[in-house]
Amino acid sequence: MMEIPLKDLPLYNRDYDGDYPQVAREFKDAIAAVDAVLFVTPEYNRSIPGALKNAIDWASRPYGKNSFARKPSAVIGTSPGKIGTAIGQQHLRSILGFCNSPQMNAVEAYIQFEPGLITDDGEVTNDTPRNVEPSRCASQHGDPAGVIVPHPGFFLPWSDTNA
Amino acid sequence: MMEIPLKDLPLYNRDYDGDYPQVAREFKDAIAAVDAVLFVTPEYNRSIPGALKNAIDWASRPYGKNSFARKPSAVIGTSPGKIGTAIGQQHLRSILGFCNSPQMNAVEAYIQFEPGLITDDGEVTNDTPRNVEPSRCASQHGDPAGVIVPHPGFFLPWSDTNA
Repeated sequence: MMEIPLKDLPLYNRDYDGDYPQVAREFKDAIAAVDAVLFVTPEYNRSIPGALKNAIDWASRPYGKNSFARKPSAVIGTSPGKIGTAIGQQHLRSILGFCNSPQMNAVEAYIQFEPGLITDDGEVTNDTPRNVEPSRCASQHGDPAGVIVPHPGFFLPWSDTNA
Repeated sequence: MMEIPLKDLPLYNRDYDGDYPQVAREFKDAIAAVDAVLFVTPEYNRSIPGALKNAIDWASRPYGKNSFARKPSAVIGTSPGKIGTAIGQQHLRSILGFCNSPQMNAVEAYIQFEPGLITDDGEVTNDTPRNVEPSRCASQHGDPAGVIVPHPGFFLPWSDTNA
């Protein structure tokens, strides 16, 4: 499993379609190189972060070169609130649906991030999130290798066990 | 009516909350200076452009300084397809709802952009979009003065008559 960075992408608009900048080409190449993409997202204003939507916009273009077409994906997320990114994930799922990405529909993971949920050593102290580890993706779509995490400081609790 | 630019905003994340960059402060100041905000949006992947969501994320933060709280807004959009940004606008409306912006719920404007709809002189050749000109906002929420247009090259057909 490898992280696909998005923080250096400029703001996409369609004027770029004729000549993608290098960082955007590399982003699309990284998606092309993996069997599936796991999105690990926070929720900003009851949707996904603008930075994540911007990355998806880059990946989906130019016309005819949509990186997500038939590329399997899964969505999980965590936030301090009890709904644990439930609404943001639904926005993301509808966007990925339009992008023609076959999605892992179950299990779902709307994780409330509470102090102590993850130890400094990366150990998950609650059984619930362990039960939804992304290796489950493999049962449906082969080995999920690409991870897109919009917040640079966002944790990925399962990265050690699924590397 | 003035355009509020967003193209120079970096990708927001919450690490910025303690120290906003100057461009983001100016963006929030521009929203604070207007009576209402008109969003004119295309649709990217059945949602709003990442660049627009990114701008909203900046405006909504840091905690307690949400620029859209009780700031009236309206949403219109156009695209080449017949649904004319209908789905993207619904994403935007749900986000603005969470941001506590009172929205102009009617009239709606899902405009299919077809060749010849706007002449080189800025004249609208179809009566339908003229009927939903943003000056209607004024009837509900005072004078709408701020316009957020995510695509740098995006036209604003009514800007001359509502300046």
